[in-house]
Amino acid sequence: MAHDEFSLIRQWTSRSNGQEGDGLTVGLGDDAAVFTPAPEMEVVACCDAMVETIHFLKKTMNPSDIGYKAVMSNVSDVAAMGGYARYALVSIAVPPQWTPKECQQIYDGIYHACELYGVRVIGGDTVSAPDALHLSVTVLGEVEKGRAIRRSQAAVGQIVFVTGHVGSSAAGLHLLLQQQDAGSIPPEWRELACAHQRPQAQVMAGRLLLASKACSSLNDVSDGLASELWEIAEASQVAITVDPQQIPIREDVRAYASHINKDPLDWAFYGGEDYQLVGTLEASRVDEVAKQFAANDIPFSVIGRVEAQAQAKVPSLSLLREGVQIPLPKAGFNHFGQRG
Amino acid sequence: MAHDEFSLIRQWTSRSNGQEGDGLTVGLGDDAAVFTPAPEMEVVACCDAMVETIHFLKKTMNPSDIGYKAVMSNVSDVAAMGGYARYALVSIAVPPQWTPKECQQIYDGIYHACELYGVRVIGGDTVSAPDALHLSVTVLGEVEKGRAIRRSQAAVGQIVFVTGHVGSSAAGLHLLLQQQDAGSIPPEWRELACAHQRPQAQVMAGRLLLASKACSSLNDVSDGLASELWEIAEASQVAITVDPQQIPIREDVRAYASHINKDPLDWAFYGGEDYQLVGTLEASRVDEVAKQFAANDIPFSVIGRVEAQAQAKVPSLSLLREGVQIPLPKAGFNHFGQRG
Repeated sequence: MAHDEFSLIRQWTSRSNGQEGDGLTVGLGDDAAVFTPAPEMEVVACCDAMVETIHFLKKTMNPSDIGYKAVMSNVSDVAAMGGYARYALVSIAVPPQWTPKECQQIYDGIYHACELYGVRVIGGDTVSAPDALHLSVTVLGEVEKGRAIRRSQAAVGQIVFVTGHVGSSAAGLHLLLQQQDAGSIPPEWRELACAHQRPQAQVMAGRLLLASKACSSLNDVSDGLASELWEIAEASQVAITVDPQQIPIREDVRAYASHINKDPLDWAFYGGEDYQLVGTLEASRVDEVAKQFAANDIPFSVIGRVEAQAQAKVPSLSLLREGVQIPLPKAGFNHFGQRG
Repeated sequence: MAHDEFSLIRQWTSRSNGQEGDGLTVGLGDDAAVFTPAPEMEVVACCDAMVETIHFLKKTMNPSDIGYKAVMSNVSDVAAMGGYARYALVSIAVPPQWTPKECQQIYDGIYHACELYGVRVIGGDTVSAPDALHLSVTVLGEVEKGRAIRRSQAAVGQIVFVTGHVGSSAAGLHLLLQQQDAGSIPPEWRELACAHQRPQAQVMAGRLLLASKACSSLNDVSDGLASELWEIAEASQVAITVDPQQIPIREDVRAYASHINKDPLDWAFYGGEDYQLVGTLEASRVDEVAKQFAANDIPFSVIGRVEAQAQAKVPSLSLLREGVQIPLPKAGFNHFGQRG
């Protein structure tokens, strides 16, 4: 890529949708952006990186999907604390074989995700890379002071829930890896590809859970249900049992799994990138919270319970299948069989 | 690198020096960190990426230098707004050929820089990379509400100043590129290598300038004086003239330049990564500010003036050499001759 083309990419980086005002004192054009959180709110900060060949291939994600998903994975981390996202800093390292047009498409995806969730790009860095494209996004959000939902407050007797459907993104990835290119996907499986390429962070669900004051732990499904529930079990020092019959899996995911002779539960537990929320809730408040989710058209499923640990200080995760507890290992999702 | 070794790196990432309290509500261990800026302060956010072969080679930087400098370049961006750094999020992408020991050393450098400047690591992401090591750091700092110093308020009649010495980092890089390895540097030039590998952000200088209320524009010297002064000239719509005799260049830098038959001003104007502060100041306040810098043992040099533009809306940067104005182009520093 010639130097002038690289300058173009820098211009897209500074195609900030951030204007001064509404909390933002200084936007792009200076060394750093300056903002004030809304009154009575704290700042939530998180950071996720996506690397070509490790987290995506050109075959599995269009350039705009890459930008979209890099923002979405961070918005999901903020949602998992009960907060909402406000600002993003985008660090991109572009190798020579990526064209300016592809880079522009990455930014199209970034800005699309930002617009969906009310996020402003307020800074970042654009550098070159020798080989693989790297995209690292920091998202800054807000949550009511002292109210962020953590992983560590799950307690015995509470129920385990999950929002939306799980396993869809992993099914989509499986499908995409079988194709020559994204254009060759049969129409009946298109939604699966979309679940992998355009997952939606559950900010509204997180806000409802925070407002309920009944949610004791929360995590987003970025590495698969098993990994997320293990994090809650360990942080809260509890035993969690899950009923596999209750795991919400889409019909097209079940159909595709059946088509390739696979158990869709594998995708639900060890897939990931669904960006649904999984957590624990006071049992006495479940009906009320479920009603609020229904009123907002957000699927909500009770999938398990928090039990007393069989041994003190030994957290665990088990499937309850026909009355028998089957331990569920934590091993997570490894993209393309590599370290994630 | 085997999977268990990669897990080790993740542990170093979470070797957070952040404890809850003192503004930090939630540290590592959840999806995101949560903090509250101090009363009457705003949040300053910036992000810088460093990529192997583009920003450093194993020959020019030890692993701990890489970690140190990735933090320092961001602390410097915060200093250039008149603020101070508080938190960092570290995103690292590690290729197979980097050993766990080298990764640990990168983190040693990160934590060393953080300790020097009172910064807490509150999050990040650790992923693998196929080829080159990438390190992207976001630093969050604080600055008094509405007081951040920008680039755009320089006005005719004001003086141009710079803190410390410039050109030292570029001299050090030149030296390091000539050596087989860092160990083979002659003792008399060791400080030059150090200037490239361990530059120090000028937070105290930025705080003095903010407190003075006399500083109208500020930038940090990350890309060389010419590039930084051009940014001020353009943002403020002014003409800047600089006296080359007044540029503060260290004696060892002059000696090394003479040794290799080079003009050290080239390093000062087109080097970079000195992380000194350059800006403009009300002329009537210069003596007072210079005294405050002297009282804090921070070198401070008046190097030029803000002049009226010869043509309306045409910002410019010139050297004033023996009464003659010589236009100074903005072309910045390109590491190893590549795009930066």
